[in-house]
Amino acid sequence: MTTESSPLTIAQLAELAGVSTATVSKVVNGRSAVSPETRATVEELIRRHGYRRQRRRSTSAGVVEVVFHALEGDYPIEIIKGVEEVAREHQLTVGVSELRPHASEQDPLEGALRHRPIGIGVIAVFSSLSETQREQLARREIPFVLVDPADDPGKGIPSVSAGNWNGGLTATRHLLELGHRRIGIITGPDYALASRARLDGYRTALDMAGVTADPALLARGDFLIEGGLAAAHRLLRLPDPPTAIFATNDGQAIGAYHAARQLGLRIPEDLSVVGFDDLPPMRWAIPPLTTVRQPLAAMAAAATTMLLTLAGGDLLPQSRIELATELIVRESTAAPSAAGGSGRQHGSSG
Amino acid sequence: MTTESSPLTIAQLAELAGVSTATVSKVVNGRSAVSPETRATVEELIRRHGYRRQRRRSTSAGVVEVVFHALEGDYPIEIIKGVEEVAREHQLTVGVSELRPHASEQDPLEGALRHRPIGIGVIAVFSSLSETQREQLARREIPFVLVDPADDPGKGIPSVSAGNWNGGLTATRHLLELGHRRIGIITGPDYALASRARLDGYRTALDMAGVTADPALLARGDFLIEGGLAAAHRLLRLPDPPTAIFATNDGQAIGAYHAARQLGLRIPEDLSVVGFDDLPPMRWAIPPLTTVRQPLAAMAAAATTMLLTLAGGDLLPQSRIELATELIVRESTAAPSAAGGSGRQHGSSG
Repeated sequence: MTTESSPLTIAQLAELAGVSTATVSKVVNGRSAVSPETRATVEELIRRHGYRRQRRRSTSAGVVEVVFHALEGDYPIEIIKGVEEVAREHQLTVGVSELRPHASEQDPLEGALRHRPIGIGVIAVFSSLSETQREQLARREIPFVLVDPADDPGKGIPSVSAGNWNGGLTATRHLLELGHRRIGIITGPDYALASRARLDGYRTALDMAGVTADPALLARGDFLIEGGLAAAHRLLRLPDPPTAIFATNDGQAIGAYHAARQLGLRIPEDLSVVGFDDLPPMRWAIPPLTTVRQPLAAMAAAATTMLLTLAGGDLLPQSRIELATELIVRESTAAPSAAGGSGRQHGSSG
Repeated sequence: MTTESSPLTIAQLAELAGVSTATVSKVVNGRSAVSPETRATVEELIRRHGYRRQRRRSTSAGVVEVVFHALEGDYPIEIIKGVEEVAREHQLTVGVSELRPHASEQDPLEGALRHRPIGIGVIAVFSSLSETQREQLARREIPFVLVDPADDPGKGIPSVSAGNWNGGLTATRHLLELGHRRIGIITGPDYALASRARLDGYRTALDMAGVTADPALLARGDFLIEGGLAAAHRLLRLPDPPTAIFATNDGQAIGAYHAARQLGLRIPEDLSVVGFDDLPPMRWAIPPLTTVRQPLAAMAAAATTMLLTLAGGDLLPQSRIELATELIVRESTAAPSAAGGSGRQHGSSG
């Protein structure tokens, strides 16, 4: 029925490889839990014959489902813009939902996908899919890609993230170059890989500058404004408070602005603040925020392109993509006032 | 074939009424351009027999398509949240697109709807559908509802808006009660009904307080931050500048904040500012913004419920819904400094 040159279905591949269709599905959907030998066998067959995804979902009339951890703030709209840019070219609908529990639903992802027969696939944003959820998607042959994955996506799971470690390094170096030595950090939640990476970048920058990291200058946040406000209060009320705060996201930077205001501190004269994300309103903060730009729309566009590749039955050239971050210097950072009156001149470095 | 009690299709209604199916379609989709007599005849038939929409679109597997004028800022996410709240209950997908021209498309709405066979209907946000676009939707029997319509939606077109006139009145009265007499206004674009209504509310408040509206205190904006910044500069550089500005949306209020900062004016000590919308970040502005709350999520939820009613083949109890606005007093308004030191005590009125 098939010739050497016509692409094979999962069933045909399974027969040739002498494994179950579930196993072939795991390989073509980039999931782990397959032995290296089996994976190699299946991939070799695909290289020889090609692979034809069962087109249960027509790519000419489909929905790219974007599932958010929370529909709050400017972060989701940046993601939606990036997905829409690519989806529109392919005449696809962008479906948006929130991965929050709902009274009548056991599993919010299941709720988001139920009764939606023509999904091209799922883009999950800042979320951590459970093993069960991944199996569900695999069983229904629904491709998925993670954007800014909340925790470690696991081997072979397609994902797009930003250069978080490098962003943390660059933000901290900027403050060091301005002359700051007591640099506080407000982290995100512990489980968030992005937060861990930014913290590690901060630590490495301090270490390379010969500055000992003071554990008192680390305050835990939750990536929300309120959490940043509380954490900044803790830092600024220390007996020896920091002269600068790396807030690790823009929301927490705004929280730090309010803590400074409540304590009568001027930004940047009395306190420098650096954010992370560069959401559009940040250039309109008072003062405009120095922050690390995370290219959210470009990340979402890349994830959509990956999803369409998977939905078309092709393998991804690489399952993990990381896009570069960039420091945007505005008006919330300056030399520490203790460093003398000439400090402001250093403000443009970084 | 039909009995007195079974609902009729458009074709059956047209036959009984002795009119074309297009005419019946106009009546059931709430469009004008139908003579009052014909409308009455068709509506009487529907009351007697009921009306059964041809279920080309299954409501159990559909997309509620939300079409935005622009995917910018916090406004769209509030709308999406409101639609998602209702759509989720009905296991529907929320599709999001931007009504901007695209290289390969003649008509962006047509582009947004092409190849999307199972749309429940369209919610168009802050946009003005052309007559051609409305006819397109009618021909394909796609119900639609306007949210915050940019211009006059036309007779019988289903729409949900906020109490814009009343919001303008309340905002201006708040400033009058604080003692301001020179109150500037930054309007939105001229074609926008919402902007006209807020301006009229402002004028009526001044008139009822016996304050003559000075034409010099009216500056045209475009509902964007940059436009608000430029307009506020024009107002604040007048020989006799205003002591307060009603910015008519939150973006323009942020523009006014920056104009004040650039001119060395403190808010609210030297200048009071009132916005309109109450987007979530406004309580985190520095200082937190006094603004008129427009219930965007509730408006979007109401529009979705209307759309589902239309998609289910039922008539709307009313085609135009207006939800109330509310003044939220925060820290950007105070008595004018020229009015004396006791001014701040009046700050909680409104």
